[in-house]
Amino acid sequence: MNLILLEAREVSESHQVTIADARARHLLNVLHVIPGQTVRVGLLDGPLGEGTVESAGDGRVTMRCVFEPERPCRPSIDIVLALPRPKVMRRLWAQLAALGVGRIILTNAERVERQYFDTHVVTAAVYRPLLIEGLQQARDTQVPLVSIHRQFRILVEDHLDTLFTAGRRLVADPSGSTPLASALAHSQNERVLIAIGPEGGWNSFELAMLGAHGFEVVGLGPRTLRVDTACIALLSIAHSAMRGGGSA
Amino acid sequence: MNLILLEAREVSESHQVTIADARARHLLNVLHVIPGQTVRVGLLDGPLGEGTVESAGDGRVTMRCVFEPERPCRPSIDIVLALPRPKVMRRLWAQLAALGVGRIILTNAERVERQYFDTHVVTAAVYRPLLIEGLQQARDTQVPLVSIHRQFRILVEDHLDTLFTAGRRLVADPSGSTPLASALAHSQNERVLIAIGPEGGWNSFELAMLGAHGFEVVGLGPRTLRVDTACIALLSIAHSAMRGGGSA
Repeated sequence: MNLILLEAREVSESHQVTIADARARHLLNVLHVIPGQTVRVGLLDGPLGEGTVESAGDGRVTMRCVFEPERPCRPSIDIVLALPRPKVMRRLWAQLAALGVGRIILTNAERVERQYFDTHVVTAAVYRPLLIEGLQQARDTQVPLVSIHRQFRILVEDHLDTLFTAGRRLVADPSGSTPLASALAHSQNERVLIAIGPEGGWNSFELAMLGAHGFEVVGLGPRTLRVDTACIALLSIAHSAMRGGGSA
Repeated sequence: MNLILLEAREVSESHQVTIADARARHLLNVLHVIPGQTVRVGLLDGPLGEGTVESAGDGRVTMRCVFEPERPCRPSIDIVLALPRPKVMRRLWAQLAALGVGRIILTNAERVERQYFDTHVVTAAVYRPLLIEGLQQARDTQVPLVSIHRQFRILVEDHLDTLFTAGRRLVADPSGSTPLASALAHSQNERVLIAIGPEGGWNSFELAMLGAHGFEVVGLGPRTLRVDTACIALLSIAHSAMRGGGSA
């Protein structure tokens, strides 16, 4: 936990906050905070800041916070992800938030089992704490926006233009010959949406429909990766390319 | 399982092989193979090839194999990894092998707990099947070489020049201002060794010792990642950069 994230309602008008949960235990048992000490804090979907410990003990920590004037930028990469099986999705939430993603658009596809959509892992009660865990790891405050779409075609035809209004659209597929990093070498100042298929890939109908809606096919090299590894690889390479990592 | 990997001793002189384990179950229950059908096979640490099913049923599959003349190239990236906690390391083995790594050099560091070295996850009986699982995912045959070093200083001073004879040496650290992809933009034809620290990072002694032994510090961007996410990110970006992904 590299940052203590707070809900706005936890912070008083005088910017005082008292916590008594896992965050307090981290401050007490790992960081061993004492009154007067400062710790990095952030307001969920708000600014970063600094908390000065006023009292600590008995499982509770009270701090007075000073926040920066601006909130951090939302990460400029969004993803469309064919819903992986629940065990994999559960592991991915925190990692996606840590790597940095503005919006997570979960969708059905031919090679997705429909019952995955009925599992707890796609309920906010499960995924929001995992997203926050990832943000606390990466020192960000912006909770990725999540939407869940049980019909791929309706998502692409009717909802995608609202969810992703302007920017580059890419779909990762083994048929892609343009490396992801090359495709993004000059995209430093725009939003990017990357579509990531299920184990076994998008089918040809899905690829054609994505193509018809502006998605360019990019490749991820010769090795076939598990979906969770591929998600992390794609986001890492995309962020690196958009920071100008490959052009020096 | 995108490839059936075989031990050399399983294959007869006439290139016939009979399997009756998880690989056979995959062929029978997922791919539903029938006699005459061909499947991708590979010899561990040998060439890729094709197996023609001769008989299938009762939990057993017999194939006759034809192998390519050459084995695949060993991935040109090696890693020094401060041993993560066992649960994390267990998850990493297959992913490292899938992403592609020639050699995995596990080491102690100040922020590694010593008892991690006494756990099953660093025994070949545990990690070799996980590495093979990753190779079967990524369609590679070359099992990463693994060595385990309980003393960081002795590793760096006495053994590293033997384990990694020539090439670029990089260490990932938040203090690094050169992006990993930039550092590797012109390293397409050399081996690269990347040192990845523990949760909390290398300490200053360790960083100085790595620096004295030729490691250049590179950064991975502004977000602090969990060690397992960071490993996947580093290997993905490095492979992308070395394929020329950022320079087009």
